[in-house]
Amino acid sequence: MQWMAFEWYFCAMLINAAQLCELLQGELVGNGEEKIYGPSQIDAGLPGTVSFLANPKYEEFAYTTEASVLIVSRDFTPKMPLKPSMIRVNDVYGAMMTLLQQFGQNGRPTPGISEFAVIGEEFEGGKDVAISPFVVIEKGVKLGKDSIVYPHVFIGHGCVIGEGVILYPGVRLYPNTVVGDRCIIHANAVIGSDGFGYKPDEQGHYVKINHVGVVILEDDVEIGANTVIDRGTISVTRIGKGSKIDNLVQIAHNVTIGEHSVIAAQAGIAGSTSVGKWSRIGGQVGIAGHLQLPDKLEIQAQSGVHSGKHAEGARLFGYPAIDYTDYLKSYAVFKQLPEYMKRIEALEKELKALKQTST
Amino acid sequence: MQWMAFEWYFCAMLINAAQLCELLQGELVGNGEEKIYGPSQIDAGLPGTVSFLANPKYEEFAYTTEASVLIVSRDFTPKMPLKPSMIRVNDVYGAMMTLLQQFGQNGRPTPGISEFAVIGEEFEGGKDVAISPFVVIEKGVKLGKDSIVYPHVFIGHGCVIGEGVILYPGVRLYPNTVVGDRCIIHANAVIGSDGFGYKPDEQGHYVKINHVGVVILEDDVEIGANTVIDRGTISVTRIGKGSKIDNLVQIAHNVTIGEHSVIAAQAGIAGSTSVGKWSRIGGQVGIAGHLQLPDKLEIQAQSGVHSGKHAEGARLFGYPAIDYTDYLKSYAVFKQLPEYMKRIEALEKELKALKQTST
Amino acid sequence: MQWMAFEWYFCAMLINAAQLCELLQGELVGNGEEKIYGPSQIDAGLPGTVSFLANPKYEEFAYTTEASVLIVSRDFTPKMPLKPSMIRVNDVYGAMMTLLQQFGQNGRPTPGISEFAVIGEEFEGGKDVAISPFVVIEKGVKLGKDSIVYPHVFIGHGCVIGEGVILYPGVRLYPNTVVGDRCIIHANAVIGSDGFGYKPDEQGHYVKINHVGVVILEDDVEIGANTVIDRGTISVTRIGKGSKIDNLVQIAHNVTIGEHSVIAAQAGIAGSTSVGKWSRIGGQVGIAGHLQLPDKLEIQAQSGVHSGKHAEGARLFGYPAIDYTDYLKSYAVFKQLPEYMKRIEALEKELKALKQTST
Repeated sequence: MQWMAFEWYFCAMLINAAQLCELLQGELVGNGEEKIYGPSQIDAGLPGTVSFLANPKYEEFAYTTEASVLIVSRDFTPKMPLKPSMIRVNDVYGAMMTLLQQFGQNGRPTPGISEFAVIGEEFEGGKDVAISPFVVIEKGVKLGKDSIVYPHVFIGHGCVIGEGVILYPGVRLYPNTVVGDRCIIHANAVIGSDGFGYKPDEQGHYVKINHVGVVILEDDVEIGANTVIDRGTISVTRIGKGSKIDNLVQIAHNVTIGEHSVIAAQAGIAGSTSVGKWSRIGGQVGIAGHLQLPDKLEIQAQSGVHSGKHAEGARLFGYPAIDYTDYLKSYAVFKQLPEYMKRIEALEKELKALKQTST
Repeated sequence: MQWMAFEWYFCAMLINAAQLCELLQGELVGNGEEKIYGPSQIDAGLPGTVSFLANPKYEEFAYTTEASVLIVSRDFTPKMPLKPSMIRVNDVYGAMMTLLQQFGQNGRPTPGISEFAVIGEEFEGGKDVAISPFVVIEKGVKLGKDSIVYPHVFIGHGCVIGEGVILYPGVRLYPNTVVGDRCIIHANAVIGSDGFGYKPDEQGHYVKINHVGVVILEDDVEIGANTVIDRGTISVTRIGKGSKIDNLVQIAHNVTIGEHSVIAAQAGIAGSTSVGKWSRIGGQVGIAGHLQLPDKLEIQAQSGVHSGKHAEGARLFGYPAIDYTDYLKSYAVFKQLPEYMKRIEALEKELKALKQTST
Repeated sequence: MQWMAFEWYFCAMLINAAQLCELLQGELVGNGEEKIYGPSQIDAGLPGTVSFLANPKYEEFAYTTEASVLIVSRDFTPKMPLKPSMIRVNDVYGAMMTLLQQFGQNGRPTPGISEFAVIGEEFEGGKDVAISPFVVIEKGVKLGKDSIVYPHVFIGHGCVIGEGVILYPGVRLYPNTVVGDRCIIHANAVIGSDGFGYKPDEQGHYVKINHVGVVILEDDVEIGANTVIDRGTISVTRIGKGSKIDNLVQIAHNVTIGEHSVIAAQAGIAGSTSVGKWSRIGGQVGIAGHLQLPDKLEIQAQSGVHSGKHAEGARLFGYPAIDYTDYLKSYAVFKQLPEYMKRIEALEKELKALKQTST
């Protein structure tokens, strides 16, 4: 199979550098007639694309990229001649997002309810909802206006879903899940599954604790693909407004995530823990159950948080997690432990010799 | 979007405190006329709900909760006046489970086979099975009585499924998977996928090893959402009776899990390892392949088990995992390593000085 | 429920030992009339099955297995009498794979397009494609000949899929994903979901960065169940030819995986990192973003790779990852840290005493 050229998947746009510059309210240096049909990464730019120099780390690629146009910061001064035309802007990231917004209208299901969807009684759908083939919606579900439900989504009875929501293919909402406005849930994510709770009987066999609580996703939450959020035992598992959760994350029963927090892929948060606002949790982090964490924690990837006794804004690392810098200092010694061990042994020998000498 | 009141999702029950007390065979202290429409958590109790004081850690909330009724242990003596009526019971957890059972009948698919399901030849379905829309069942499948198959489930040919089983939406059973009685498999779990086995050819290219074994889930097993259990290479991957597996867990080919073990979220067990009975495996634990582990191991979250040489009932921690207490002791020193390093350097200096003095 | 006998799930083949020997071009020692109906593991062999002694570690089972035929290496000399007939071959693994190939034809969807599939405009399907019930294919998709699409698969618009591909149930391909020839994607894997990228606005609220890049899986790639691969931000997330990725793995946006690499379950690779060719990445490994890793790295399970400064072929372990042997040496001391601490304290005491003596 031949890999199709880069152009293949970007065909939505054809403007020239001057028009692009006007769109971004920038300052053009070079040829305004350059034709642009799509964006590219600076280290993989092709003729006919526009690249971005947002991170100074990538400056070297500015001098080698094949891109036709390069968007740079107003204060950028090239150290050597540049092949692409430049567009200087105040905010390179902002310009990038404006452009991606333009390029990104890749096509979405149009409003309407597929004849191949199964929809239960007492359904209340807002204006312009899109419900795709092979969707199943149980009894008594509310779906706010402009929301999009992709194929193979399951929505359990009593779910209440806000406006402008996107449910990607294969999302599963267990009964009574609440999804706020403008939430995005990626493919195969599961929201509202039973918590992992059992009580041993007299023979030590595990008896399931029935989970009758719910999950509430507040407004503007995004949930990654294949992530799982368990329902509360008898209360609520809650994801605060504006928080973003990556792929393959585990959120256990009764957990609360504060507003505007981000949780990277494969992190896991055990039952009944409360994560503060504005927190940043790295990939593969594990957080023990029943902790009350302060706001603005920054937890380095793979750390294991076993205690809630951290200051607001603390930066954590390690297993169990301690202060980030302290962990790195200890780990720097750890790497030399065999040598230190020898130094201890040398000290012991010398001291022994010295004692024998001095007696 | 306005968050609906707590009451919204618990509307199944309306009894008063005296009736509740009778149901739980407890002893009432306070007003028997209090109306109860649902349960709540003690730290988030609202008027009209019943809360539980099961864990002494939460006692402080007993004095502040807004719940109308509080279920407590018979030996609980409040340190200050309580607002809710109390019901004293022998076993608070037991009472909680009785109640959750009552509240938890959230509605399930009713028996019957959807006209929108595709069912292969030689299907044998027991009495009162429920098969939902958009289910696909391949040839020669057996499904025991009272089992529930939610929408979008795929059951490969030759699968044998017991009685009273629940397969939540999007569960995938590869061919010839065996599921015991009363098993519960949560949404999007995959059972019976190929093991991760390849053999390099002469050019070092990986050639797939065909996996023709199966997965057997014995009776009373529960599998979490998005968990994956690979089939045996030529034999069986087996989950023992009564074992419970959380979300996003990886069980590789040829693994055996003993009876009545629990495995928390995101743990992974590599190929051909055997986990004993009554084991407790924490979240994000990794266990290497080809180990024979003893019964009743307790493995702390995120540990990495590289060896099978542990005593029955051992408690493990670390990476690679060692005795739990030993790990914590070593880690306590680890945190002070920069200081110890300085002490070693100080010793070296002092000793050097002393040697110069004494010579 | 009674567990069906081993025979239940292997009924495809009935030959005798002599025929088997001829098939494998081996040398028979023992009874050629032994009837074989399927394979078994050496430690779980039953009469009527053929087992393999491929790994010398399992030699003990050769003397106790109930299997009727045992395939061994030509240079294997039993230390005591064997019950099964032996077939000596040059390459035991090769023989095993030949057999598994024979046994493994478990039945797959036959070519044809289900009347219960929904297929968009401008679809181009090659000869003998199989498209199962409840599949949804959006506009403008190409699907190469002999490819199999299992039930509940979603293929977004503009996807280009090669020849001889297998998409297992519930696979989700976001728009414009490219899948090379002979790729296998296991159940519920998600390819092409949005990367985890946001830009804080003035209030610190996270604003979604639109992801318009794609994912390209080159030829002969296999992707495990419930694995997620995010699309590039504006460019490509690429999995190199012949690479194999296990279950529940996270591959973030803009990542490149070189050819012929293997990534075990639950590993995660952060955004924009490039993994070399012929790499071997263990389970639950985490790799930080924006790293350029050399070829042939071997990363031990659960390690955390924070730097790209490693030699080609390096073997890594630890968190952050260092040389494998160095980590083990340091960890050996770590386990004895409390003792070393005491030795430091003893040294301090002795030195103090000695100083007092010598002054």
